[in-house]
Parts: sequence; structure tokens; C-alpha cells
Amino acid sequence: MADSGQARVIFQPSGRRGSFAIGTPVLDAARALGVYVESVCGGRGICGRCQISVCEGTFAKEGLTSAADHLAPASDAEARYAALRPLADRRRLGCQARILGDLVVDVPSEAQTNRQIVRKRAEARRIDPDPAVSQWTVSVAEPDMETPRGDADRLREAVAAAAGLADLSIDPPLLPRVQAILRKGGWTVTAAVYRDASAPVLIDLWPGGPKPLYGLAVDIGSTTIAAHLCDLASGRTVASAGTSNPQIRFGEDLMSRVSYVQMNPSRLPELTRVVRDAINALIGKLVGDVDAQRSDVLDAAFVGNPVMHHLFLGIDPTELGGAPFALAVSDAFVLPTRDLDLDISLGGRVYMLPCIAGHVGADAAAATLSEAPYASDEITLLVDIGTNAEIVLGSRDRLLAASSPTGPAFEGAEISCGQRAAPGAIERVRIDRETLEPRFKVIGVDDWSDEAGFADRIDQVGVTGICGSGIIEVVAEMFLCGLITEDGVIDGALAERTPRIVRNGRTFSYVLVDEGIPISVTQTDIRSIQLAKAALYAGVKLLQDRLGFDRIDRIRLAGAFGSYIDPRYAMVIGLIPDCDLAHVGGVGNAAGTGARMALLNRQHRREVEETVRRIEKIETALEPRFQEHFVNAMALPNKVDPFDRLRAEIVLPPPSGLPGEDGEANGRRRRRRR
Amino acid sequence: MADSGQARVIFQPSGRRGSFAIGTPVLDAARALGVYVESVCGGRGICGRCQISVCEGTFAKEGLTSAADHLAPASDAEARYAALRPLADRRRLGCQARILGDLVVDVPSEAQTNRQIVRKRAEARRIDPDPAVSQWTVSVAEPDMETPRGDADRLREAVAAAAGLADLSIDPPLLPRVQAILRKGGWTVTAAVYRDASAPVLIDLWPGGPKPLYGLAVDIGSTTIAAHLCDLASGRTVASAGTSNPQIRFGEDLMSRVSYVQMNPSRLPELTRVVRDAINALIGKLVGDVDAQRSDVLDAAFVGNPVMHHLFLGIDPTELGGAPFALAVSDAFVLPTRDLDLDISLGGRVYMLPCIAGHVGADAAAATLSEAPYASDEITLLVDIGTNAEIVLGSRDRLLAASSPTGPAFEGAEISCGQRAAPGAIERVRIDRETLEPRFKVIGVDDWSDEAGFADRIDQVGVTGICGSGIIEVVAEMFLCGLITEDGVIDGALAERTPRIVRNGRTFSYVLVDEGIPISVTQTDIRSIQLAKAALYAGVKLLQDRLGFDRIDRIRLAGAFGSYIDPRYAMVIGLIPDCDLAHVGGVGNAAGTGARMALLNRQHRREVEETVRRIEKIETALEPRFQEHFVNAMALPNKVDPFDRLRAEIVLPPPSGLPGEDGEANGRRRRRRR
Repeated sequence: MADSGQARVIFQPSGRRGSFAIGTPVLDAARALGVYVESVCGGRGICGRCQISVCEGTFAKEGLTSAADHLAPASDAEARYAALRPLADRRRLGCQARILGDLVVDVPSEAQTNRQIVRKRAEARRIDPDPAVSQWTVSVAEPDMETPRGDADRLREAVAAAAGLADLSIDPPLLPRVQAILRKGGWTVTAAVYRDASAPVLIDLWPGGPKPLYGLAVDIGSTTIAAHLCDLASGRTVASAGTSNPQIRFGEDLMSRVSYVQMNPSRLPELTRVVRDAINALIGKLVGDVDAQRSDVLDAAFVGNPVMHHLFLGIDPTELGGAPFALAVSDAFVLPTRDLDLDISLGGRVYMLPCIAGHVGADAAAATLSEAPYASDEITLLVDIGTNAEIVLGSRDRLLAASSPTGPAFEGAEISCGQRAAPGAIERVRIDRETLEPRFKVIGVDDWSDEAGFADRIDQVGVTGICGSGIIEVVAEMFLCGLITEDGVIDGALAERTPRIVRNGRTFSYVLVDEGIPISVTQTDIRSIQLAKAALYAGVKLLQDRLGFDRIDRIRLAGAFGSYIDPRYAMVIGLIPDCDLAHVGGVGNAAGTGARMALLNRQHRREVEETVRRIEKIETALEPRFQEHFVNAMALPNKVDPFDRLRAEIVLPPPSGLPGEDGEANGRRRRRRR
Repeated sequence: MADSGQARVIFQPSGRRGSFAIGTPVLDAARALGVYVESVCGGRGICGRCQISVCEGTFAKEGLTSAADHLAPASDAEARYAALRPLADRRRLGCQARILGDLVVDVPSEAQTNRQIVRKRAEARRIDPDPAVSQWTVSVAEPDMETPRGDADRLREAVAAAAGLADLSIDPPLLPRVQAILRKGGWTVTAAVYRDASAPVLIDLWPGGPKPLYGLAVDIGSTTIAAHLCDLASGRTVASAGTSNPQIRFGEDLMSRVSYVQMNPSRLPELTRVVRDAINALIGKLVGDVDAQRSDVLDAAFVGNPVMHHLFLGIDPTELGGAPFALAVSDAFVLPTRDLDLDISLGGRVYMLPCIAGHVGADAAAATLSEAPYASDEITLLVDIGTNAEIVLGSRDRLLAASSPTGPAFEGAEISCGQRAAPGAIERVRIDRETLEPRFKVIGVDDWSDEAGFADRIDQVGVTGICGSGIIEVVAEMFLCGLITEDGVIDGALAERTPRIVRNGRTFSYVLVDEGIPISVTQTDIRSIQLAKAALYAGVKLLQDRLGFDRIDRIRLAGAFGSYIDPRYAMVIGLIPDCDLAHVGGVGNAAGTGARMALLNRQHRREVEETVRRIEKIETALEPRFQEHFVNAMALPNKVDPFDRLRAEIVLPPPSGLPGEDGEANGRRRRRRR
């Protein structure tokens, strides 16, 4: 056991170690050491993602003895969790288990697994290249004592003549390398010229002829960072890679990272450093994939939500944490890669896409560029759903944007059996209208749970929880089956018809999985989904109010989550407004596509800058009608909006206030309200 | 004594210490530790500047015993030196004395003195300010959720409107500071805008109203670095300071530093670092002098010879060490101060003046700007004398430039009793035409040596050697007295008339000082001066050839040395061509003045750029007539040029080939030649 109020803790398999005050939760110790342990519930003992176990024994080399009772007994929260979902193999919840003495802690592989799941990929969009970087092979006159012009000056003139750019200048950090490169190339060299909105600059130089040049499009998300390496000449994406955002150790979601910086201002450089380091590691992987060099990467375009955008630039995001949510900088701009410590060409440039508003970032701007609602007469609704939903609505005539605080429910957090999209997560659900028996599909297994192959294959991944798309489907199916009312209440009376409805104190749950780790949908889970979808819907309604009419011709669901939602179910629960289902669809990683467009084509940069300038920003918190829209949107699909187009395709339970076909159900619902 | 082939050496008064291989010369050990010990002869045991002494005894704290015999006995060179000029107080020559065992070495104060002597000062030239940096106090609209533009973007617009600069951009490194400054200033702030040849940039920002802004003009010489702090609004120089160039430890002169880098390419960053560090220290002193902050310095202009220019920029100067003497970069350019690790405002800018040719640097360009020969119909000869003489000749019609390898003789090196200009150095000499007795003046003492006060005051500084201006005067006076012939030969026959002419083997010397440390002018000394002055004169002749005529209307002697030369004596020995003496004069630190002009006025930047573009560069080494001019110029004042204007004012010995008034002397000279 430890003396002096401190205990030594070693995490395996990473081997990281440190001393911690008695009473420290294991999860905090892991974060302090940079050991990745997933947690989506904010350390409240709800999500169960942070399970760890103790390796017992005396470890001679480390000179410590680790024992299970060197962790304090289960807290109330941990006991509640274990009652609901028994903990296997003497596992403990890292967020709850407090350190009492020396420990060797094992982080099970599934607690680390999700870090590898990056669903952001480059979409197959073809982009016409018109890059900011061009290359020019020139022969430079040898030095001559009679006309003793500097080597770099003669080079500049040769390139300026070849490129027709009289105002070309040389990037100063290149100067110390010019003479050696000219001589190595036998006075024939190739220069890279960067030319965007400002005066052209000769940014790189190498001996001999042209070479393939690459650019980098990066989408810095709160959870994952996705990077695409593109050939600047062809516009093709030659490699893509993703990684977890290492800032996660400073806070799971955006606002907790903002609070972290607010509380620990001296740590801001570290948040900036870890994200830049992660991007540098990604770049290494990308160039390795295509046998290129870091120095072959000369341009980059970055998108991210405002907090990620600011932290990447080394800007304190504290102002984004409260009204008026002031961005330090919103316009697009170009800066040299060396100002960002990015390890690409020394003269490389970075284009930062513009942010739209304090909660509507450069990622939303990029998605808008990708979907180009401003180029169409149709009214398009573009939604990127994350912890905040970013909403763009409009057409060629007028474009509006807002964000809505949906919270993390759609990412599987704040849901009792929720998890991020990863192997083992339930992503599709159907409930039999008669028997009320469910069937489901799990990420990593192709068969449905009632198909022959399922039992064989499920052992490899297990059924570990429900991800966002699964949650939407199960709530929608429960509504369509009458298991929940328009108001989202689980009908306890149906316990008579199915053992899957079980009582939890004063409310009921629906048992989705009753083998292995049981998985249920609780009343609280449904409330979380209602709150989240109501926030999004109310935001859309505000934009419609401002636009002056309700018609929506098409809906585009952006982001990883948007790609996996079934639009039909999203509409059934009223997550998105009524629209012809044929015109609703996921558009994949639209932010990443927009970043690639801005990387590869300067006209697209002007396009996104112009669009963001003319877009009208609506701050939902300032709108008096938000609350009214929100309350109406708590109902399934909505208290006041008829969803006629959806009803034309799907039989929905009738709205309240209208006499239902199923008079009894309506009667029951009314009784409950009293 | 040391074991294992190493000895420990401590230098006092600095206290620096290290271990060195047995046999290492003390001077090398000092340089390895960064201990400044002067040496002008290149470690050949000639100059005697590197004297040190051993502190004998056992040093308990350091655990070593130091003894005089821990230095090897005197080398042949040291014995020769000591025979000529006895070494006082058991002193040794640092370049000759080799380490045999542990030592505490005392570096006498005079061996360190010269580091403090910086003769470069700001001339009193009035410069009309038109600086690149302007400041704009603006009120910025507070952030507003309805129009969520970034704080920096609203700031940019406010400043762009105030300054009338639509294309203003913000320096990216400023972005992380913008929000805090705006709030600290209550939304009233002052922005500094840099606007020169390229698009305007907002480079700095502070809360509240305007403040005094400063700029820095720096002349990086091989020996000394001079810096002037100027008020950008008034144009006044508010502080000046100088320091030794710490690169001196890598080589006394330019070419030895180039060879050092060539032999030790990995040490290039160190040469760059030490000069930047020295400049940063100077900046600290300058801003301290006027109670300003480093961050108040927003602009700078730098000049230096090509090797200093390149080393300051981190560019390998090796190409400058041999034909075709290719400059890496010659054009003027602007770069951010952070690319040079200069500790002024983070957004500060540096203007590098253009270099003219491989041996004619930005210092010569600045001197040309200062003296503006291109603005006059008169033919001006502008000469900056250092290890290389930089020569500019011409008028409004045409301007030519060249350099001549004068060597370090004019700086007191390669002269047996030579030294740099410093207290104790003989700077003025007169020789009585009859008695051949000299009188002289010493730096630091106002009286001549034959005046009453001299004896009282000389004890404080001593007579330690002859500096450049003293050497020129003593050679000229010896020529005027007939002590040396037109060909520079010391006339041994005059030993009959004065005991000051003494024989040294096959040649003679003139004893200038016979008390204390004896100081003589040897035949070799005179040859060194002849070689140096002939090189300069031949360079001027080549420019005259190219110009097509010999007339020179005025001569401007730039640089510290030029300010202290008596033009009359310079002309007597034929260092400068014949010209009306009323139109010959020193112009002080013209390079520094030019740097200040470029700092303070953007039109002057355009002027020096345009001048350097149109200046015709002559490479003396390529000119077939150089050798002929050089041989003629070995004579005093010249074998072929009549120096009529000088003869109109001074009685010179008649040129050879003409019958002299003093037939006997001429006869003697002719005999010697046979």
C-alpha cells in the first residue's frame, strides 16, 4: 500500500505510470498520463465505456503490489450501473473507481477500440483542379562577375518570366537553400509558386524537373481528425487517414474543452500542440501510403468547428464559451505552415476556410460549399449533426444558418446503453407490429439478428450498445408500434402484451437485447432523444420563419452520423422536417469534401468566402419563438406540423387533437396527462 | 599536472573554464570558451595583442594547481617577438603558449579593451520621415450575435477604413492576441500597419491610443556592429550603441570566417546565432536608454558587407569565398523579424538593403544612398576602407562600383606594431624635416608627445601601438622627409643622420618610440601599406578607365577609418587620387546613415534599390589593366600620375624620371635600384 497519501499506478498495455493522490478516480489518472480510456457520459457512471480491471500481484520490477482492493468499493453510481448491466470479469468503471493504493491497471482493448474507428472518408466527388500551387522548371543563368546579381534574384526573374508573374517574391526562409539547390540541379531547377488572393510567392525549390505535388485537406472534428492527401495536378485523393482528436483527454465535448482552457489558461499551448502533433502524425501516414515525402506537400486546407479552428490556431476559445460567442477571427486567410508547426514543405501554405458564426464553423462552411444550396432555386436544408447541429437553409435567393444545441445523445452519449458507432453497436432496429419482438443489425455483422448467420458471427464482435442511428430507429419503431405515445411516454400497459416492457420504478423500459449484456431503451433515453431532436427541429423552424415559408425541397444530412441515419426514421421521430423522402439523403463527409474543394480550386475558395459573407446568421438563443418551436417539437413527430408528405408514405399514429383510429390509445394518452 | 592528456584551464576575469588537450595554444582554448582575447596577426606571434599571464598557485575551490611552467617554453616566434618588444610581467603570447598542465589564465584588461571601442556613431543627418509603419487608433464595434463576424475581422475593417487600405490583412501570429487586446482597450485600440512595396499588413496592436514607435538601423561590420534606435515619427536618432562582432572568434577577417564555415559547415548556425544574439543585446541596451520596450520597435533596416549580410540571414557564405563570388541574394527584401529571431515586436519587419556585388555589400549601397553621387553632376569618388575597400565612382550620368582587396593593414593588422584604433594607439605623427625626430598623438591623450601635458597623461593609457591613421601619417611623413624613397625603401644611409634609423638584417627600421614598449616602422610595414594603398588606387583607376576620364571633383571617405584619416596624408602616399583637398573629406558612418535613411523613409528604399540596379559593377580581378595600375600605384604617391593639385599645395619629393631638386637623393635612389 502507499504511504504519504500517494499511490503509484501503472496502466497496461501502454506501460504509462505515475503517482496519484489517494482518492483519485482511475479515469482521471489515465487522462493525466495520456492513456486513452473512452468515456462518453462525462464520468457519471452511466455509459460504461470506461471499464478497466486490476492486474493483481506483486510486480518486482516496478517494486509494487497491486490488488483489487486497492480500488475503493463501488460507488452508488457504479452499483446502479452494475445492477443494470452486470460488469464482467471483475471489471470496474474507471470514472467511479477511486485509487486507494498501488495498482497495475489493465485497459481492456474494447475501451481503446473506438479510437480507431474513423468513419470520415473522402467522398468520390470529382473536383476540377485549379490549385494555388504551380510548378515551373527553369534554367537559371550562371553567376557572372560582370553582372553580380544574387542567385536567388536571377532565379526569381527566371520563374517570374516563365510564369508571367512580375510581382513574384521569394519566401525568405527559402533563401539559405537556393544556392545549393541551383548547383545540385546544374542550374536547372523547378520552383513552386503559391498564388492565391495575395501577391505570388516562390515557396519551394528543388533540383531538376517537375514532381508530383500534394495538398492536404483536413477536417478537425471534436472527436476525430480526418485528413486527405490530394494530388494537386489531377485533383485526385490519393490517401485518406483519420485519428482520434487527442484533445479528448482535456474534455469529451467542445464546451468541456473550452471550460478546461478557461480554468487552466496556461495549458492552452498543450491543447494546440497535441492537435498539431496528431495532424503531423497523420501526414506521415498519408505520405507514407503513397511513397511521397513530407516536403512534397505544399498546400493545405483546414476546416473545423469554431472551437477546433481556434485551438488549432493557438487562439484561446474562451470567448466562444458564452454569449455573444465572439469568434477571434472568422474570415478565411492563408498562413505559412511554419506558423503552425506543421511538418510539410518549409514554404507550404495553409488555407483556413471561413467560420460562419460562433457555433457554425468552417466545417459547416465547407459542407455548404460542397452542397452548394446557393446555386439552386430549390430550397435546401443542410444539417450536420454532432454535439451541435449546424443548420443551413435556403436557395440561390437567400441563405440562412444557425446552430442548435442537440447535445451528445445522437453520438450515443447520455443514452443508458448508448455508444459511439463501432463494431458491436446496434445500428438498425425493426419491431414487429404484432408481437412487439425486435430484430436488429449490428455494426460488423452483415446479417440481421433474426437471420441464420447472425448467431455465428456475432460472437466475434458482441452486442455492446446502441449507436446514434440505432437509437433513432428504435425510438421510431417503438412509436410506430404504439410502444410509446406521441409524447414519448413508454406505455406500461403493454407489459401485458410483451415481457420486453419492464418497469423501472415509476417508468418503463423496452428490453431490446435480453442475452449477454442486456440492452434496454429507458424512458430517460427517449427523453434525451426527444430533447435533442426538438432542439434541431426548432432551429430549422426558426430559419423557416425567417425565410417566410415552410417549403423544403430537399434535405441533405452531412457528417458521419448523417450518412448512417435512415431518413425515413429521422422523419418519423421529427428529427427533420416533412419533405419528399426521395429528396432526403446523407451526403457523407461534406465538410471534408468542401475542404478538398477549397484545397484544389481557388475559385472554390472565393465561392466559400462569398457565400459565408452573404449568409444570414441566426442566433437561436436570441429568437423569442425558439421555446415554442422546441415544445411543439418534443412530440413525435411534432405537436403542430402535420407531416403530410411522410403520412402519404407511412402510416403514422394520428396526431393528438385529431380523433385517432385507435381511440383507446388516444384515450390512454389523455388520461396519462392528467 | 594533468593526467590523461587533458588539462583544465580557467580564464579570468570571466571565470570560463574547460578541459583541453595538452599542447593546445591558450588562444585556441580561449576562443573555444568564447573568452575574448584580441589577435590581429592570425596567431603568428607578430601582433602581440594576445598577451596573457598565468596566475600561479593552488586553487582549492577548483581543485587545481596552476604554475607558469604549465605553459610550454616560448616558441621561436614568441622568442623573436620578445627580443623585439620585451614582454612585461611574465606575460606570454596566447597564440604561441601551449598548455602543458592545469592553468588559471589572466587576460589583461588591454587584451579585452578593444572590444569596447566602437567608433561608429549616428551622424547628425536630418532625415525626413516617411516610415513604412503607421499607427491607427480605432474604435471597433463590439461583437454581436446577429452579425457574428470575428473580432479580428471587424478590427481589420476598422483599420482599413481609417487608413484607406482596402487590401489590408492581419499578420497571422497576431490573431491569438487580438481578443484580449480589444477587451483590455475597451474596444478602442491602436494598430500598427506596415506598408512598403507589398500589400499592407496589420502587424501589431495595443490597447488605447498611439505610442512612440521606434525603428532600428543596424550596420553589421566584420569587427563591430553599430545600431541606432530612431523615432519613426520624428526621424530622430534617440540612442546609438555598438558592440564587437562576436563572430570574431571564428575568424578575425571576412575570408577567415568564410573558410571557417567552409571547413565546418555544421557550425554555420552558430555564426548566425551569435550575431543575432549580439544584436538582440544591443536592442536591449538601446530601448533601455530611452525607457522604451522591445515591443515598441516595429521596423528595422540592416546593412553589412556581403559575408555579414549572408551570415546574418543564415545563408552559407562559401560561394562568396571564390570566383565568381556569387551572392545568394542581392536584391532588397522585407522579412518578418521572427524569421530572424530578433527580439522586437512579434510582428516587426526587417528591410535588408540590397548588395551591389560579391564584394560590394549593402553597406556600400547604404553609403551610396547617404552620399547620393547619382544626384550630382560632379564626379564623386566614395571609398569605404576596411579589409576590402568598397569604391563607388560617378555622377548623375553614370555610376560604377568595385572593391579592392586592401587587406587588413589599414586596421593595424600585418603591421609589426599595429593595432586597432583604441586608447594608447598612435594616431597622428609629424617628423621634423631637419632633425628627423618624430612627435605624435595618442588616442586618449589630447596633447602631442612634445607638449607639456603629455608626460603626465600618457601613463594612464600607455603607448601601445600604431593604428591605421597613424601608419598612414608616419609613412607619409617619412616620405616627405626623404626617410623613404618614392619606391618605399627606408634609406639606410640616413642612419648617419639619426639613431632612429636602425638596421634589421638586410633592411632598416625607423624607431618612432624608444621608451617603454619600443615602437618601430619596419620595411615590411611600409611594404604592407604600399600593397594596401596600391590595391585601392588600382581599383579607382579601373573605374576611371571605364568612365573614360580621370577628373574627380570630390572624394568622400566613408567608414570609421575614413573619418580619422587626414586626407592630405592619404593623398601624399597615393591612397586616394589627386583632387582639390578642399573637396576631400570623411563622411563618417555613411553606411549607418544610409541604413537610417532606408529605415525612416520608403522613398529612400526605392532610391537605393533603383541605384543599385543601375550601378555598373566592375570586378577588379577580371580587368587586364589591374596589374599595371597596381604596380604604378606601389610608388609614393604614384609612378605615373602627377598629382599636380596636391603638388600645388605641398612640396612633394619630385617623381622619378624627372630631375629632382635634391639631385643627390634621386641619385641615391637610382643606385639602389641597380
